[in-house]
Amino acid sequence: MAFSEFRPLAEKSLIEYIKATPVLYNKLGNNFDDLKIKEVGDGNLNFVFIVVGSAGSFVIKQALPYIRCIGESWPMTKERAYFEAVALKAHGQLCPEHVPEVYHFDRTMSLIGMRYLEPPHIILRKGLIAGIQYPHLAEHISDYMSKTLFYTSLLYRTTTEHKRDVAEFCGNVELCRLTEQVVFSDPYKVSQYNHWTSPYLDQDAEAVREDNVLKLEIAELKSKFCERAQALIHGDLHTGSVMVTSNSTQVIDPEFAFYGPMGFDVGAFIGNLFLAYFAQDGHADLVDDRKVRSSLVRFSFSTYLFLFLLLLVSDFLFHHLCFMCLSYFKAMHS
Amino acid sequence: MAFSEFRPLAEKSLIEYIKATPVLYNKLGNNFDDLKIKEVGDGNLNFVFIVVGSAGSFVIKQALPYIRCIGESWPMTKERAYFEAVALKAHGQLCPEHVPEVYHFDRTMSLIGMRYLEPPHIILRKGLIAGIQYPHLAEHISDYMSKTLFYTSLLYRTTTEHKRDVAEFCGNVELCRLTEQVVFSDPYKVSQYNHWTSPYLDQDAEAVREDNVLKLEIAELKSKFCERAQALIHGDLHTGSVMVTSNSTQVIDPEFAFYGPMGFDVGAFIGNLFLAYFAQDGHADLVDDRKVRSSLVRFSFSTYLFLFLLLLVSDFLFHHLCFMCLSYFKAMHS
Repeated sequence: MAFSEFRPLAEKSLIEYIKATPVLYNKLGNNFDDLKIKEVGDGNLNFVFIVVGSAGSFVIKQALPYIRCIGESWPMTKERAYFEAVALKAHGQLCPEHVPEVYHFDRTMSLIGMRYLEPPHIILRKGLIAGIQYPHLAEHISDYMSKTLFYTSLLYRTTTEHKRDVAEFCGNVELCRLTEQVVFSDPYKVSQYNHWTSPYLDQDAEAVREDNVLKLEIAELKSKFCERAQALIHGDLHTGSVMVTSNSTQVIDPEFAFYGPMGFDVGAFIGNLFLAYFAQDGHADLVDDRKVRSSLVRFSFSTYLFLFLLLLVSDFLFHHLCFMCLSYFKAMHS
Repeated sequence: MAFSEFRPLAEKSLIEYIKATPVLYNKLGNNFDDLKIKEVGDGNLNFVFIVVGSAGSFVIKQALPYIRCIGESWPMTKERAYFEAVALKAHGQLCPEHVPEVYHFDRTMSLIGMRYLEPPHIILRKGLIAGIQYPHLAEHISDYMSKTLFYTSLLYRTTTEHKRDVAEFCGNVELCRLTEQVVFSDPYKVSQYNHWTSPYLDQDAEAVREDNVLKLEIAELKSKFCERAQALIHGDLHTGSVMVTSNSTQVIDPEFAFYGPMGFDVGAFIGNLFLAYFAQDGHADLVDDRKVRSSLVRFSFSTYLFLFLLLLVSDFLFHHLCFMCLSYFKAMHS
């Protein structure tokens, strides 16, 4: 172990850390002369350093004991790095094509050393906003979801393996609680971290808060999220957790991973595609009228069979989609 | 600890054990002169000794590393005694009126020392077969189920408490696997330990094995049993796990306890009452025509509200009851 107790790394201490860690040291061909280090953590939670040398590269991701985008006022266990590393390795074994390789994990330092997803990889959300079409995205994500969800579920594994891993991921309780709060509770009431474009969307936000039928359905979904240990889900599978090029799709950041309902991953991803789809009009300009909206359309066709099979095993997804469609048609007719 | 490693107890070694265990020793008023010990384990799994002295009494239950009614050919972890003791204490704290007190637990010896349910307590199943009516049974069992299920569920507890205890009871995996096999798989196929009154019920048994719609529904229930960590359920709540007098109802033997769907307890108990109800004709004689069948009727009325509330939170129960009714009406019309 490089350091005997936890400390947040900065550029200088990171070099010290790498020099004391053979697996990382070797990745760089033992050459520190033209090393480039860049802190790029634009996410909500962690610090991320890109480390590039002449012979090789990697990313160092370190969890701090609070939520980065809020600050030290919202403490959050740095043990999440442990569960992220375990999930990356488990999902990586099942689907190495779409999960970046983990080179190194240090539990004391809450630190993961992993493959650097080199340019032109960008965050999928940014690509969708820029109107880029990803012809392999649907196939890749379907492949990722079906492999990671099916092979970690009781459809494939024994009860003994399942209960052992369910018990382990019960330890990721703080991240589960965060999802319970920010996905299943806060949006449906007045709460500190909600935000929307005010005053234009005030009425819409209020309509959500006043819709008791919706809230009852959400409570049912929340109970499934908390209780149904169906598969090792990613737990935060929005378009900000996927990096893409036209040929490559890489799923990152599974620190919210735990044994939960499969439909939570599938629903989150499709939900994000819906958002991207309806946001296209707002991004239209003279050069691109954004009428193609092809990501979603392609997604719908190529994954039909996959989704149908998932529907059979996941009534959670079914509920999720029903409500999205309901909300959509409501919006269309109001 | 009385003994430093596991050994199955017999009458003589039991006395030795008690003498070395103050909490048990004291229960007997330190008087061994007129001690009576009787092995009464008529259950499927364990050895049970009743220990009665002039000043006090208790029961010693010891788990052996196999299933008693089958023999050493079916090994079964003796760690089940640990989960039974934890469940007895947890449920006993929530509902002391209907759960016998645990005086002593020894994990090394897989041994529980607990309240002796003195005569006229008998196993409820024997009472129902004898045609005895239990006017307080419905109220008592409803009280037991609502307290133990509600207060161990997320309807009452925090996510942190819930995940901690779910993880612990994942350790009781062997007993869960046994239920999966003997409740959710074996009855629907040809298997070694099935038995029925042959040849009279051969056709009925075959009809169950051939009913694919039923088997699909059972598979869905099995998946909920395996995946839905809703509350700390008893896990084996048939009428053989309840001891009664006309005024007392005591639930024993929760070695199958784990975090599962509430409806499994409720459905198992109601299912057993249905069996008892339809068996009454077979027990009728000149003295008692068994037409009253009052246990079930009283149960239905006094627990209506309780069941209704449970239905709201437990679609498992709903499925279970639907299928029982379906099977019942099928049987009535065939």
